[in-house]
Amino acid sequence: MPRPIRAVVDPAAISANIIKIKQLLKGVAVMPVVKANAYGHGLGRVFPGFQNADALAILEIEGAAMLRASGWTKPIVLLEGCFDDADLNRAIELQCDWVVHNIDQLHDLEKLASKPLGYKPRIYLKLNTGMNRLGFQPTDGAAAIAWLDQFATRNAWSSPVLMTHFANADEAEPRDRRPLAEAQHQQLTQLKPAHWQSSLANSAGILNFPELAGDIVRPGIAIYGASPGPHTAASYGLKPAMTLSSEIIAIQSVKKGERVGYGSRWQATEDGRIGVVACGYADGYPRHAPDGTPVWIEGRIASVAGRVSMDMMTIDLSNIPEAKVGSTVELWGDNVPVDLVADHCGTIGYELLCAIAPRVPFHTVVQP
Amino acid sequence: MPRPIRAVVDPAAISANIIKIKQLLKGVAVMPVVKANAYGHGLGRVFPGFQNADALAILEIEGAAMLRASGWTKPIVLLEGCFDDADLNRAIELQCDWVVHNIDQLHDLEKLASKPLGYKPRIYLKLNTGMNRLGFQPTDGAAAIAWLDQFATRNAWSSPVLMTHFANADEAEPRDRRPLAEAQHQQLTQLKPAHWQSSLANSAGILNFPELAGDIVRPGIAIYGASPGPHTAASYGLKPAMTLSSEIIAIQSVKKGERVGYGSRWQATEDGRIGVVACGYADGYPRHAPDGTPVWIEGRIASVAGRVSMDMMTIDLSNIPEAKVGSTVELWGDNVPVDLVADHCGTIGYELLCAIAPRVPFHTVVQP
Repeated sequence: MPRPIRAVVDPAAISANIIKIKQLLKGVAVMPVVKANAYGHGLGRVFPGFQNADALAILEIEGAAMLRASGWTKPIVLLEGCFDDADLNRAIELQCDWVVHNIDQLHDLEKLASKPLGYKPRIYLKLNTGMNRLGFQPTDGAAAIAWLDQFATRNAWSSPVLMTHFANADEAEPRDRRPLAEAQHQQLTQLKPAHWQSSLANSAGILNFPELAGDIVRPGIAIYGASPGPHTAASYGLKPAMTLSSEIIAIQSVKKGERVGYGSRWQATEDGRIGVVACGYADGYPRHAPDGTPVWIEGRIASVAGRVSMDMMTIDLSNIPEAKVGSTVELWGDNVPVDLVADHCGTIGYELLCAIAPRVPFHTVVQP
Repeated sequence: MPRPIRAVVDPAAISANIIKIKQLLKGVAVMPVVKANAYGHGLGRVFPGFQNADALAILEIEGAAMLRASGWTKPIVLLEGCFDDADLNRAIELQCDWVVHNIDQLHDLEKLASKPLGYKPRIYLKLNTGMNRLGFQPTDGAAAIAWLDQFATRNAWSSPVLMTHFANADEAEPRDRRPLAEAQHQQLTQLKPAHWQSSLANSAGILNFPELAGDIVRPGIAIYGASPGPHTAASYGLKPAMTLSSEIIAIQSVKKGERVGYGSRWQATEDGRIGVVACGYADGYPRHAPDGTPVWIEGRIASVAGRVSMDMMTIDLSNIPEAKVGSTVELWGDNVPVDLVADHCGTIGYELLCAIAPRVPFHTVVQP
């Protein structure tokens, strides 16, 4: 059956968000992160929105190939680097730049010494300044930097970039986010050769510490119009690029005291109406959405009533008499920020956007 | 790059789980639920495991078409019924049976009266006995049953089935699950004509109240080897049909007091090692997995240390000296039940299985 659930993505919103960041950080190169199929939006669908970006950062080599095939001629940076020779060869073939985060990846570069590559690769050397995920410890950093600097010069590659990743840039309390970011910035600055560029900031860094951003920024979630935290996307001037909506497929009358859904979680405090929406956790809506999580219907906010099931969810329509079978329900988008849904569910907008299931049909807003 | 994450599905496990349920409920028809792309396993991949089932239940008409194209000749039941005429025509073309859960769907049958269909459709009339999601209220049920009974007889269709859905069959406390299920069973039994069949039980009903299951059961999650609750899948004799695994791509040494990941959530209580696993929430692993969520590596349990990020997660390797870059990490499967991971994350195995992202490559165990 044609289930009425749909996701609509808008490349123009992405374009507007890139311009917003360029206005905020004048003169800094903006390299949006398009990994995970453009954070669930569909890289092919939203590609036209990235035309104003200076470079694109990605994880999956297939995505890099798709970008080149679509006509992207500016830099592409592989964020986790190359894992083996086949990778390395493919990266060169696609004229990619890439991240080096450990000693093996660094020494792998030697295989490319003196080879004619047809372009000048730029290596992003990653420092672990407190995230403890990927990257060289600062104690090993100086030697790695010296080695790479000589290598790049000797082989006439582009000047490298020293990069790191903020761990706490999205914390609600300034005292929890500022000191570590400053320490991370300082560690990087102390090690960076003058002729190298720097790359520090993800979306949270860009919006919360623009002065610590470095030369090349890597916005991810902000590009898609959701907030990295702690403030709302709207307050940062960002426009959501995805709307998830469905329809009411059934309405149940409930009497005061009756219960709804698995575990009988929700109970009617008075006689009312329950709308059944064709959207469930197998579509990517979070199963743990509590009662009260907002949706938008007939121009107003209604809320989740009862546990989200696999293909359906139930909402309280008691105060929305005009709602009927066939009414559109916005699960997130312009009226219900994805971050607000995520907040109710104890997660972040990123996770929800990435989790839309393949069975949900996507549509793209076409520009006039 | 060829990220090392992979999901392996095993049709033989599904086959074994169906046989297990047949042994438990002798003489009852077993109709596995294969919606949501076989709960994320890939309907085409695991289809060979369903050969012993008596019927299959699904939501998506494309899935029904795929089953027929694969040679499935036994009944297919559309669980949310038909939404419009195009649906109805397609359902007939594919010789499906379907659920009728509201008065409009019931009266739509009239369009098919006296038409030569080439088979005898069986209608599943859904009663709302306390779930308050889909179905006729018992007060309206008698009239709907009478209407449908006459319609089926007049048009020489198969005898209908009266169905309902348990709301609380998975509750941990017997006093929370048993009374409502018995009341639901009683409501259905009182209304069911003698020549109709009944269908009540999902996996939780089958395993926890086999005596209330009715004539046709609709196991979902149990078929895939996860538990509907409250007990473990192993205790019900079920075998997991999916293993999600990846590899260590980096190791960081951490000193006592150092912190790991976004929000600096995890802190080392002594000097140790952190393994970075190529699996993140954009692969479908839950972002809200707390520290301590188990994984399996080098024959032992290790646990999540620090917040799961988009493409990577970090685990504590302090007590696993043999772990190295390239070591396989089982995220869930035979050694780490998906239900245990779900339990740590405040959800159920269903949600995790359905949420594997399209970027994760799947492999199928081939039978000798």
